[in-house]
Amino acid sequence: MDVPGYFAERIPLVDERLEALLPSADAPPTELHAAMRHLIFPGGKRFRPALAFAAAEAMGARPEVAIPAAAAVELIHTYSLVHDDLPCMDDDVERRGRPTVHIAFGEAVAVLAGDALQALAFEALAAPGISAEHVAAGVRELAATAGAAFLVGGQVDDLDFSRAATEPDAAYAHRIESVHQRKSAALIAASITGGARLAGASDRRLAELRLSGLEIGVAFQIADDWLDREDPDDACSLVRAIGAELALERAEALLGKALSRLEDLGEAAEPLRELMRFAVRRNT
Amino acid sequence: MDVPGYFAERIPLVDERLEALLPSADAPPTELHAAMRHLIFPGGKRFRPALAFAAAEAMGARPEVAIPAAAAVELIHTYSLVHDDLPCMDDDVERRGRPTVHIAFGEAVAVLAGDALQALAFEALAAPGISAEHVAAGVRELAATAGAAFLVGGQVDDLDFSRAATEPDAAYAHRIESVHQRKSAALIAASITGGARLAGASDRRLAELRLSGLEIGVAFQIADDWLDREDPDDACSLVRAIGAELALERAEALLGKALSRLEDLGEAAEPLRELMRFAVRRNT
Repeated sequence: MDVPGYFAERIPLVDERLEALLPSADAPPTELHAAMRHLIFPGGKRFRPALAFAAAEAMGARPEVAIPAAAAVELIHTYSLVHDDLPCMDDDVERRGRPTVHIAFGEAVAVLAGDALQALAFEALAAPGISAEHVAAGVRELAATAGAAFLVGGQVDDLDFSRAATEPDAAYAHRIESVHQRKSAALIAASITGGARLAGASDRRLAELRLSGLEIGVAFQIADDWLDREDPDDACSLVRAIGAELALERAEALLGKALSRLEDLGEAAEPLRELMRFAVRRNT
Repeated sequence: MDVPGYFAERIPLVDERLEALLPSADAPPTELHAAMRHLIFPGGKRFRPALAFAAAEAMGARPEVAIPAAAAVELIHTYSLVHDDLPCMDDDVERRGRPTVHIAFGEAVAVLAGDALQALAFEALAAPGISAEHVAAGVRELAATAGAAFLVGGQVDDLDFSRAATEPDAAYAHRIESVHQRKSAALIAASITGGARLAGASDRRLAELRLSGLEIGVAFQIADDWLDREDPDDACSLVRAIGAELALERAEALLGKALSRLEDLGEAAEPLRELMRFAVRRNT
């Protein structure tokens, strides 16, 4: 399977839904609406939506069934980037070659745009036409993923890393994986299970997919650590903690484990497998 | 009915649920968890939870059925206060006689604690044991209420008021009511409909209750404007825009309209009516 081709075919599905969900930049309050759209259009790779589509296809369904989950995870991901970039957090002025939301629209509007994007993620998941059971289960999963136990708790610990400038040791490596798991991997896992649930996956299948998503998510972050290995500010980096060779070995081991959980899924899961390989091996 | 007695009896129901939902301040990351709890315990009046309980009782149900909605609206309300107090917004150092969250825990943790409280509101609504239909409808309502069209959009326009220092005129009064409706009244309406829905209210009844909640919510804010009439920073005030007499007349008219929508509900709706009167007439 050709990964860029897969993205090119599937991403318009989620982009169209995001366009419909986001308030128009022409309607008041225009500043808020433009700020909400700033990091959504143009967005990043849409890797999480792609995982949702591929997971639905792995269950033998059409990718379209995963659209609500795909939109929801992209909205959560984007809201978290808007807040992470704030002066009181990472204080980033640029993202994807453009000014960050608080640089373009001011800090207050950036906080509020992130807040509105989080609410919109839950609205996306509760789309008309989805069974109430799927909405309820999806909301339970996404709310837990976006909350203190995962996304937000991971970000708090990530900030502590930057501030503490800890010396690398074995416990340090373990703590980094814990941050990666909560801050990044949980949402990647929810992307996969979100798409698979809407395609009718069983609870048992969802539990296995969740584990594979967590493994891929940590491996994905290790790949990020490797790509950012020259960044002196990236204290929460497994590459820095245990060195590039061991870190990349760890990522490959996690990829292998994740793929082994999909072994019984056959040909339909090939796009999902390819996306997993891509996530871990891009540019390395 | 005795309003303080009603609060004293019903509020422990929501406090117990909030205690169970919020992560322990002893568990890591302790700073995040303590920050999330800071404005929840001790909280404010719990007016929105009380409305949810009274709305369930107005439908002939036990107040306990409304607990998930009561917890959810209190979590949304609290998260919005945490973010409103931030230096980039209202820059408040004290709330309810205690330091605001960013003063006590720093700005980054305050943003993140608010974020986690919002996610937790959706988790509260998706409580086990609630029918999937009620979860889905409740999430749709709460996500819309918390998003750009209401809570966040109202806050953006409220900030614009403080910055623009507009001269009072008729259009100004109209814009203030629009901010009150979106920033405050929508969540008050969702408190009432959230409780009533879990008590089995029909769609037609919910639509009528929503209108009464919006009316009460605006009247509640006008009462706030009156209580804060000496505050020179409160630019978004109907009392300032049209004077105390006309503003309080407007509040009474809205209260009358809201109560008229509950006329056919009989004795069971008496706590809800009393809370509505209390909301508009407290301390005036």
